[in-house]
Amino acid sequence: MLYDEIINIVTLAGEMILQAHEEELTIYDKAGISNFVTKHDKDVQSYLIRNLRIILPEANFLAEEDGIQQELGEGYCFIIDPIDGTTNFIFDYKHSCISVGLAYHGKMQFGCVYNPYTREMYTAIKGEGAKLNGKEIHSSDKGLSENLAAFGCARYQTEDTDRIFDYAKKLYLNSLGIREGGSAALDICRVASGANGVYVELMLQPWDYAAASLIVMEAGGFISTAEGGLISLEQPSSILAAGRTCWKEAMKLLN
Amino acid sequence: MLYDEIINIVTLAGEMILQAHEEELTIYDKAGISNFVTKHDKDVQSYLIRNLRIILPEANFLAEEDGIQQELGEGYCFIIDPIDGTTNFIFDYKHSCISVGLAYHGKMQFGCVYNPYTREMYTAIKGEGAKLNGKEIHSSDKGLSENLAAFGCARYQTEDTDRIFDYAKKLYLNSLGIREGGSAALDICRVASGANGVYVELMLQPWDYAAASLIVMEAGGFISTAEGGLISLEQPSSILAAGRTCWKEAMKLLN
Repeated sequence: MLYDEIINIVTLAGEMILQAHEEELTIYDKAGISNFVTKHDKDVQSYLIRNLRIILPEANFLAEEDGIQQELGEGYCFIIDPIDGTTNFIFDYKHSCISVGLAYHGKMQFGCVYNPYTREMYTAIKGEGAKLNGKEIHSSDKGLSENLAAFGCARYQTEDTDRIFDYAKKLYLNSLGIREGGSAALDICRVASGANGVYVELMLQPWDYAAASLIVMEAGGFISTAEGGLISLEQPSSILAAGRTCWKEAMKLLN
Repeated sequence: MLYDEIINIVTLAGEMILQAHEEELTIYDKAGISNFVTKHDKDVQSYLIRNLRIILPEANFLAEEDGIQQELGEGYCFIIDPIDGTTNFIFDYKHSCISVGLAYHGKMQFGCVYNPYTREMYTAIKGEGAKLNGKEIHSSDKGLSENLAAFGCARYQTEDTDRIFDYAKKLYLNSLGIREGGSAALDICRVASGANGVYVELMLQPWDYAAASLIVMEAGGFISTAEGGLISLEQPSSILAAGRTCWKEAMKLLN
């Protein structure tokens, strides 16, 4: 019931993203190259927080925009990215999403990631599996050679460029092909659905991967740092998300 | 009128692609790694040829699947890719398209590229500009530093791997970010709409880029080989498609 209410709020927030393309975008720069935020990131975040507060007043919030980043803390905490893939959003790529996770005592309980353009809603409840538009999804159990591989990189993380392109080329040469979609949350969810065998990126924030991390784990996949360590919900992390077989192969290939 | 009829046929063929996901896919290997063709590529192509023959009985056909590749020849010739982005189609990426171009005496007269998942229909008539869902589009006139860059690569073209990843990294470091979408026709059309500043791939077939080449030129962009030469509609080619400013910058950067 709580989770259905979250899904409804996120679906309605998706309409805000679709409608945004009817008007001129106002774009603000954050720190570094290609680190954008639009009026719509802020509007969607406000809408989400306002409505999520109504259904769960005691929850904390950890969110991308505008300094409302709090600690995960005790009890409930929503972890929110109002638009993951803001550059895609600005260039009308139709591959951006809203990501909302709910943690309890620091552990993910629920996650939903929604692409309003394709109306793809990925969801997971801890211990109950993962779904895409209500239908169970499973990560691939095949190896890299039978899967697509995907990577992510952001221009405001310049020190990792050589390493991520080296990873991308290695994954490419051992898989069916390489993709760079521009939305970490969606591209991790594609690991959950088996569309991607593996996804790697070297620097992400918790709101990029919190919801998607539960979705990929509940779909039977693995998610770790690029070195195979535990990911954190409280600080930035590299991410290696993959089906089980692909994860083992990628760990060998990249480390 | 002829062009509207082509658009209608392509739109209906798009429904066949959407419906295909309701059943198990039958996948056949062509030559090399990740060179797939499905029953649906063949079915969509048959449907297109059958219906395009009715509206223009004298036209030749140059098409991807099944050896009906003829010469462009004199008079009209349809250049068809029934599903560009077959691997994306197999993995349910929602980023594949139907590409239909019409040449007359070897020159492109009309092109349409349709993504049925997002219902994006790119069209161009020679001398009359390019449109996305009926609305005029224009390639970006800004430089690389204000645009996204995209590249394509296919696992059955292994000799170009080092070069294409070198290109991708250079474009990345001089742009807002890099993308690899997995459908050359769509990713070139994104140059036409200004979503991509530049697109580069080192080996494509005429049916991959014929329709999109007219669309990007009619949108005010450039399309050439990666070395800046003229592209051919009769043999494979590398492709550098870009807005005018990005094209000049990319030419310097890559050559």
